Order: sequence, then structure tokens, then C-alpha cells
Amino acid sequence: MHETYRIQPGSKLRLGDIPSNDDAGLNRDDAEKEFKQLSKRLVDLQEILYAQKKHSLLVVLQAMDTAGKDSTIRSVFSPLDQLACHALSFKAPSQEERDHDFLWRVHQRTPAKGFIHIFNRSHYEDVLVVRVKNLVPKEVWKARYDHINAFEKMLADEGTTIVKFYLHISKGYQKERLQRRLDNADKHWKFNPDDLKERAVWDDYMAAYDDVLERCSTKHAPWYVIPAEKRWFRDLLVARIMVATLESLDMKYPDPAFDPRSIVIE
Amino acid sequence: MHETYRIQPGSKLRLGDIPSNDDAGLNRDDAEKEFKQLSKRLVDLQEILYAQKKHSLLVVLQAMDTAGKDSTIRSVFSPLDQLACHALSFKAPSQEERDHDFLWRVHQRTPAKGFIHIFNRSHYEDVLVVRVKNLVPKEVWKARYDHINAFEKMLADEGTTIVKFYLHISKGYQKERLQRRLDNADKHWKFNPDDLKERAVWDDYMAAYDDVLERCSTKHAPWYVIPAEKRWFRDLLVARIMVATLESLDMKYPDPAFDPRSIVIE
Repeated sequence: MHETYRIQPGSKLRLGDIPSNDDAGLNRDDAEKEFKQLSKRLVDLQEILYAQKKHSLLVVLQAMDTAGKDSTIRSVFSPLDQLACHALSFKAPSQEERDHDFLWRVHQRTPAKGFIHIFNRSHYEDVLVVRVKNLVPKEVWKARYDHINAFEKMLADEGTTIVKFYLHISKGYQKERLQRRLDNADKHWKFNPDDLKERAVWDDYMAAYDDVLERCSTKHAPWYVIPAEKRWFRDLLVARIMVATLESLDMKYPDPAFDPRSIVIE
Repeated sequence: MHETYRIQPGSKLRLGDIPSNDDAGLNRDDAEKEFKQLSKRLVDLQEILYAQKKHSLLVVLQAMDTAGKDSTIRSVFSPLDQLACHALSFKAPSQEERDHDFLWRVHQRTPAKGFIHIFNRSHYEDVLVVRVKNLVPKEVWKARYDHINAFEKMLADEGTTIVKFYLHISKGYQKERLQRRLDNADKHWKFNPDDLKERAVWDDYMAAYDDVLERCSTKHAPWYVIPAEKRWFRDLLVARIMVATLESLDMKYPDPAFDPRSIVIE
């Protein structure tokens, strides 16, 4: 079922035409039960990933504000072993980072064999916010789609499995979420008036995401568009995709370098 | 003249057919005089590069043992400001480095805007020693030529000028140099018996270099084959190419962000 949400390479699509409150007709209780099982399976799979040290897994998480990037990380990834699973946030780049190419700081944070890294925002910001706000000339960001694809292909060929999630919400849903932050004193810390500036250019962001999804969903690094307004459905879908992705690696615990039967512990 | 030594993209070539003791018919004294002038010019150009902070320059240096990588760095690059010009050596990768893709450690050491980095050995070892010694499966190193080209194209598009030097010597010349190390007690520290293992597969290395030069000399990141047996000619050629490369950037000191005439220092 989750394959429905995978973007085929080169698909022409408009996010505005894709429902963001979809739940595939599932029942919430059933979904939550299944999620718990998937969550346990994910913990098991991560242990094999870490033990085998053959593959690494890079998860890219992108979304508009209030779509639930942080809460997805909490629900799906927090149960995993923090020693081998790291969530990394990419904020506005430092001066040193801006003095290098856009992939420089990202490449330093790619996962080693055995590890899972979750990118909370990523190199995609360099064709999203950077494009919408004209932070570099058009010819620079235009060249970056190919650079991103080449970079991700290199990572894949060298042993990193990549999966990318766009958490999809509507502009109306964002309004509700922002209002809730304003109405609730405990949530004021989450509200940043600057977020309204991003909201004002919502359509520009959607156009930029449309191009990302069309140009950068590849066989080796697919994008999934996750309807994210029902959080239980969002978590279920992300967990299913994570489990399916790890199972496709056909991993196993490594053979010991010794014969366990020959060992005598005195 | 130095353009003769630039490898055109896609050239079929065999290093064995290229003279390694070429001096273009130059007179040594004239060459050394010209080198001194070029060396001063290089210092001036580097200052503008650093002041303008618009471009960065990556110099890749590859060669067989005894070809003079270290001495080239000493002659050509040591006069430059050490604050903004760094020579970086790539040795056998650490376990952590091997747990990432082959470009991971290299990318971390690319130059920031305003800087010159000289790679003493480089990511090319991952299709040279790694290929000759079968350190990864063939399908892995075969994919790396494209990955290197894509990586260098990305760096170039993002503001890094790349120039790559292969210091060319013959197998006979290497024998002389190694023998000199053995015959001279002061040079014993430079002799490593393991170097003879590399020498034993000289032809495999030449075939690997032939492929590098054929596949990875691009418009944006050219390879130059430098006849390196006459050191004065080698230094002259590298200096000429460095000056020509920096001059092609059409750099200038940045305009001050203030009107110098309006400033009164009391």
C-alpha cells in the first residue's frame, strides 16, 4: 500500500492536487496497533544493520512549518538505539558553511556503515528556501538538482540506502496549527512571527517542492509524499516504509570470525 | 605553451608513449629566471584570491613514488601565505573513513572561498591503488569515475576552480631515485621496502592512470601531465599553469563597503 505514496522518477505532479488528509480508509485503532508492531520490528532491523555494518541508511525529512517533522522523529525514530541512530537538524548555514559548496556540510553528516541518520531539513533547502528567497543566482540553484542526484547516486553506489519523506499538509491546515500555537500560552515558544513570512509565499514553496519531487525522486533515492494531517496515519506510513526499506536490504547478523563451539570459557 | 600538457577530455592516451624527460627545448637558466617571476606573481594572485573571497582553488597532485610531489609543493606552493594555502596529504583511510563513501573525507577538506588547497594524493587513489590492489569490487571502482566527475562539476559550479597535475616519470627514472635513497644514508628514512611492491605492478598503475586521464580530464577540472624528470622544468610548468589558471579568474580586490575619502582618523 505504501508504494502508492512513492513518487515515480520524472512524474509531473502538483502537490496542490494531492490530498493531505488522506488515511487510505484505515481505522485509527487498527493503525495504532500495527504501528506498535512495526516499531518493534524497526528496532530489530536496526540492530542487524548495526551488527552487520554493511549498509547505512539516510532518511531525509522535509516539510513546511507545523507539518510535524519533529513529532515524526519522536514517534518513529526515538525508539531506536540512540548510539546508532542520529537525528541531525540543518539550520541556516554558518559563514564557514556558506564559504563552501552547498553539499559540504551535508556530506560531513552522512551515516557511516551500520548507522541511520535522519536529516531534519537537508540539502534540499538549497533548492527550496534558497530558491524562494533568491539567495543565490538562478543558474546556481538550477544546476543543483543534477548535483543532488549525482551526490545521492554516489552515496547509494557506495552503500547508503536513501529514503526521503515530504510531510504534506495544506495551507488551511497550517493556519489551524499556527492559530493553536497563538491561542495556547504553553505553545507560544513554538511561534515565530517570521514563519508568517514563509507562509506568505506558500505557493512559491509548493512550486519549488513540485520541482524537487519531479526531478529528484530516483530509483536509488525515492521521495515519498506522506499525507501528514492525520498524525496516526503519517506515523504508520513512515514506519511501514522504513520497515520495507530495511527488509529490502536482506540483512543478516554477521558470521562470527571464530567457531563459537570451540570457545571454552573457564 | 603549457596548454600542450593539458589532456583534452576523452583523449585516448598511453602514458608510456609520453616522454617524461621533456623540457620543451628550454634552457635551464632562463627557466629558473622565469620561475622566480612567476613565483612572485603567484603570491600576488593569491592575495587577491584571499581578499576577494569569491573563488576557491583546488590543486590535485598525483604521481608514482619518487616523482616529486613533496618537492613540487615545496618549490611552487611554499612561498604562498600559509594562512590561506594548505597542503593536505591523503594517506590510507582510517576505519571511520572507510565506513563512509570514498569522497566523504575528501569533501571535508575542500577549500573555502578565498583559499587554495593542494591535495597531496586525493580521491583519485580510490581508482588507482584501490583498483590495482582490488580493495573493492570492480563494479564499485568502475562507478567512481562518473562520481568523481559529478563531484568536481558540483565543486566547479559552486565556485571552486580545479586543476590536476600528474607528475610523469618513467620506471627507469624511479629506479635511479630509489637506488639513490639506498646509496645515501641520509636518505634511508625515505626508503620503504613496501614501495617495491608498488613498483612491481608499475604497468597496472600506468593502465589505471591512463583511464583516469581519459575519463576524468574535463573542461571544468583538467588534468595536466607534467614531465617531471627535470625538476626545473616541472616547477616552471606547474607555476605557469597556476598563474594562468588564477589569471583566468579575472579577480580584483573587492570594493570597500565604505567611502575611504569619508573616513577621518583622528
